[in-house]
Amino acid sequence: MLKRILSTLALALAVTSVSAQESVWKTHCGTPTGQDKFPIYSYKELPAFEKSDPAQWKGVKGITAFWGDKDFRYPATYSPAGLKSVPVAKVLKGWRGERVFAQAVISSAVEAKDVEYVISDLKGSAAVIPASCIEAGFLRYVMTDEIGPTGNGCNARPDHSAYDSSMVADCVDPYLKSMDMGAMQTQGLWLTCWIPQDVPAGTYRGTVTIKSAGKTVRTLKLDVVAQKEVLPLPKDWSFHLDLWQNPFAVARYYQVPVWSKDHLEAMRPIMERLAKAGQKVITTSITHHPWHSQTEDPFESMITWTKKVDGTWEYGFDVFDMWVEFMMSCGIDQQINCYSMAPWKLSFLYLDQATYSLKEISTAPGEATYELLWTDFLKAFAKHLREKGWLGKTAIAMDERPMDVMKQIISVIKKADPGFKIALAGNYYEEIDKDVDDYCIVVPDKFPEGVVDRRRSEGKFSTYYTCCQPGKPNTFTCSDPAESREIGLLVANLNADGYLRWAYNSWPLEPLLDSRFRSWAAGDTYLVYPGNRTSIRFEHLIEGIQEYEKLKSLK
Amino acid sequence: MLKRILSTLALALAVTSVSAQESVWKTHCGTPTGQDKFPIYSYKELPAFEKSDPAQWKGVKGITAFWGDKDFRYPATYSPAGLKSVPVAKVLKGWRGERVFAQAVISSAVEAKDVEYVISDLKGSAAVIPASCIEAGFLRYVMTDEIGPTGNGCNARPDHSAYDSSMVADCVDPYLKSMDMGAMQTQGLWLTCWIPQDVPAGTYRGTVTIKSAGKTVRTLKLDVVAQKEVLPLPKDWSFHLDLWQNPFAVARYYQVPVWSKDHLEAMRPIMERLAKAGQKVITTSITHHPWHSQTEDPFESMITWTKKVDGTWEYGFDVFDMWVEFMMSCGIDQQINCYSMAPWKLSFLYLDQATYSLKEISTAPGEATYELLWTDFLKAFAKHLREKGWLGKTAIAMDERPMDVMKQIISVIKKADPGFKIALAGNYYEEIDKDVDDYCIVVPDKFPEGVVDRRRSEGKFSTYYTCCQPGKPNTFTCSDPAESREIGLLVANLNADGYLRWAYNSWPLEPLLDSRFRSWAAGDTYLVYPGNRTSIRFEHLIEGIQEYEKLKSLK
Repeated sequence: MLKRILSTLALALAVTSVSAQESVWKTHCGTPTGQDKFPIYSYKELPAFEKSDPAQWKGVKGITAFWGDKDFRYPATYSPAGLKSVPVAKVLKGWRGERVFAQAVISSAVEAKDVEYVISDLKGSAAVIPASCIEAGFLRYVMTDEIGPTGNGCNARPDHSAYDSSMVADCVDPYLKSMDMGAMQTQGLWLTCWIPQDVPAGTYRGTVTIKSAGKTVRTLKLDVVAQKEVLPLPKDWSFHLDLWQNPFAVARYYQVPVWSKDHLEAMRPIMERLAKAGQKVITTSITHHPWHSQTEDPFESMITWTKKVDGTWEYGFDVFDMWVEFMMSCGIDQQINCYSMAPWKLSFLYLDQATYSLKEISTAPGEATYELLWTDFLKAFAKHLREKGWLGKTAIAMDERPMDVMKQIISVIKKADPGFKIALAGNYYEEIDKDVDDYCIVVPDKFPEGVVDRRRSEGKFSTYYTCCQPGKPNTFTCSDPAESREIGLLVANLNADGYLRWAYNSWPLEPLLDSRFRSWAAGDTYLVYPGNRTSIRFEHLIEGIQEYEKLKSLK
Repeated sequence: MLKRILSTLALALAVTSVSAQESVWKTHCGTPTGQDKFPIYSYKELPAFEKSDPAQWKGVKGITAFWGDKDFRYPATYSPAGLKSVPVAKVLKGWRGERVFAQAVISSAVEAKDVEYVISDLKGSAAVIPASCIEAGFLRYVMTDEIGPTGNGCNARPDHSAYDSSMVADCVDPYLKSMDMGAMQTQGLWLTCWIPQDVPAGTYRGTVTIKSAGKTVRTLKLDVVAQKEVLPLPKDWSFHLDLWQNPFAVARYYQVPVWSKDHLEAMRPIMERLAKAGQKVITTSITHHPWHSQTEDPFESMITWTKKVDGTWEYGFDVFDMWVEFMMSCGIDQQINCYSMAPWKLSFLYLDQATYSLKEISTAPGEATYELLWTDFLKAFAKHLREKGWLGKTAIAMDERPMDVMKQIISVIKKADPGFKIALAGNYYEEIDKDVDDYCIVVPDKFPEGVVDRRRSEGKFSTYYTCCQPGKPNTFTCSDPAESREIGLLVANLNADGYLRWAYNSWPLEPLLDSRFRSWAAGDTYLVYPGNRTSIRFEHLIEGIQEYEKLKSLK
């Protein structure tokens, strides 16, 4: 299914006369779309480079619609010719309070104008699930690449030429209400129905009507069976979900000043969506570029560090406070993770009052300078957090550091203020287990026998993460969508507490068009799209978490 | 006397193999000295490129010493052969509390080893002026250039090739206690005797003994006549002296962190020397680079401006306070001039808390943004100054701005807080006269008839300045030293209150070696040398100010 994009394509395009804007597109998309950068509501996908095979469409007449497999990313060239049946009725079962998912598929052998969908209320014997409980949208195609020869997604790919690329259905676009389809083209329609907690158990019947040029193509039946069990609200889920948020990507993409009212407004629905997935943790950056420039939009420090002329330090917590309060207002309020006492570049930016300039101090855990610097900061930070009432939920967080480094850092934290919690995403080391309140290890590593239960009894979280590894299960745009669901089940099977992923929305340059990034398999850096669009992957992730919660609840 | 340095000389040297250090020297000196950069105590001058003419030295035998003309910069090639007499006795008359000046000259037809000087106490009938009242030092040769064809020193001279250069005696070096002289060489010895206020009037007799290789060359008699009148201490002088200080040049030259204890220690004697010249004004920078990069060491802001994430401004006054308090401790405490609401580049640097980065806001007087920005700052600044008890002596200072700009700025200041004083060095405009507390105009401009007296009665200063203009009188290293004395007399003749010069110590790269700068005639940027060395120019300037005070006192 994947087609190799020849690197010569980009070269061939490069010599044609294009505008500066188009040339920007080309550098990351391989081809221009002609639209303005960073579209939010309406946008054009990259041109499809796969052509449908007329032989495969033989026998398909006109336009049709049917219920598809929600675990399958239908390519635009997909032909329904081989299908033994085209299901027109769907039954989705779920607990009250649970989200259930479906994919409708529209295939057209001919050009079809103004293809649209109408979703009815779902009527039960004693109540109605209104259509507004169903979040639906056409599935949009985005450029992806592949995991690569090492079996995981960790290889850098600055120009993508060594990797196959393809267009995959991933993004659920609620804004595109009507579209024209070309001949021999298939289009998915995603539906997520959130069954209200308070409807009576029973069957709720409705329809999804597909139309073209104002005429009904097909009316698909949709039955949602609300089971008697009730799934708690996401805020009450026990699953410890920690998808790192990147506010800087939102500011850049929405072209609004960072931390402005417009910025917060742009983030609100995106972060509320995250809260509704059961997110527990607020991602904060307490130093400049904790992960150097690993993302398209690096994390700026939410705390300003000022070395005063008398040699004392002064810290500005305003941005940190604003961000934490904002996230809490979005419904994410259980834990505050602070990155990082161990940034990848062991260099800390500060305003030097004497020279009125930004300077860097380079110092590593284990050095006296490091301990002095951080002890002063941590004491001031703890004092501030106590005043805000946040100390008990604040963790100094680190990722992927060697044990000796961790031990040195932990010692500094504990000496400065034992009130801090500590979070680590990295290898499991028994020696530091007792100090790490929120310990996350990578799939397919495993906590030793008994550790998770013991830690749970001590009030500590033990969770798993995926990043560019493992190859499977993962949440890349080139991953099988079912892998995202599998994560919740995997965590349940491992008797663990939750899942961490390092990037909820560290968008690449043009996330709606091209999910590839210079490092790692495409989609590694984000799960949701600009405009607060969800994805097949994110919905499947929620599905898996729901399974986890249901299993917990049944135990 | 001036010899053209061929630009080909530098080129010729450039192709020889030299160390990186030497190559640095060459770029500004034309030739290497081999010593480390930025010497403080002991240093080698640039090699002399003028050779003595044996014909002129005909008849001069051995080594001799005599009292010279303190207004004359004796070149090293100077021959005493033509002198009708070589005075060996000197009588200096001055008020008690006054400084009196003399120059001894040593000329040697032959090589002379270990030339040194011994100054005795000066004995009077009832008291002694101890030798410690005499500040003395060999006059060192420094590279200068010339005023140039326009008649003033304002022409840029990035490579000096269009100007004659020469070595002139200017710097008084108290550290060089003994020196070897070449054959046919002349060397000045400067003496400043500060007559104590409290000695009885009368004649005080002593000697200056010149030795070579341990043997006395000549004993010169020195009589100081202390007159009955008493000159007040410099802090009580009425002359409004305003030589701008550059702390950043000292930090760079002494290679100490700016505003560190070492930095203050390095500056203390230099600034105490300035206080003893009667300086009244502390130069402060309240914005980043108020004069862009016109000096070798630009002025950093002594106040940090932070735009907080909520849009409000916060100001850090720590450096400003430290500097002002330091200067006051050096004895300069009458006025604080703050630069600048009108920096040459109308762009203001601030720390943007939201992005944790330094940003610039470009706005000009007359714009709403400018007024908002400055009103907020001035209100906060006035509050701070009131708390420190300094508001009454603080002037918002500007230089060389057009009248309409000044009017707009004055309006912003007065609205923000009428407690601020205003200082201006620029053209005289009647329309703003009433608002400018410290008005300084350039020589040879003149305040209109009656203006100075009227202003004085209003408690306002009216002073004169020189910068790269006029060509004469001025204080360049290529100026006649008497011109520096003339300034005080000129101010007295014009019935004005004082003198301003924009650079007390804005040192070029290597001020001990080369007084030239990329802009303006050499020496424009400084009057004193590293190591707290005075200069012929600075001593003459003090002499003129003393004349001013004596005239005032006699009126």
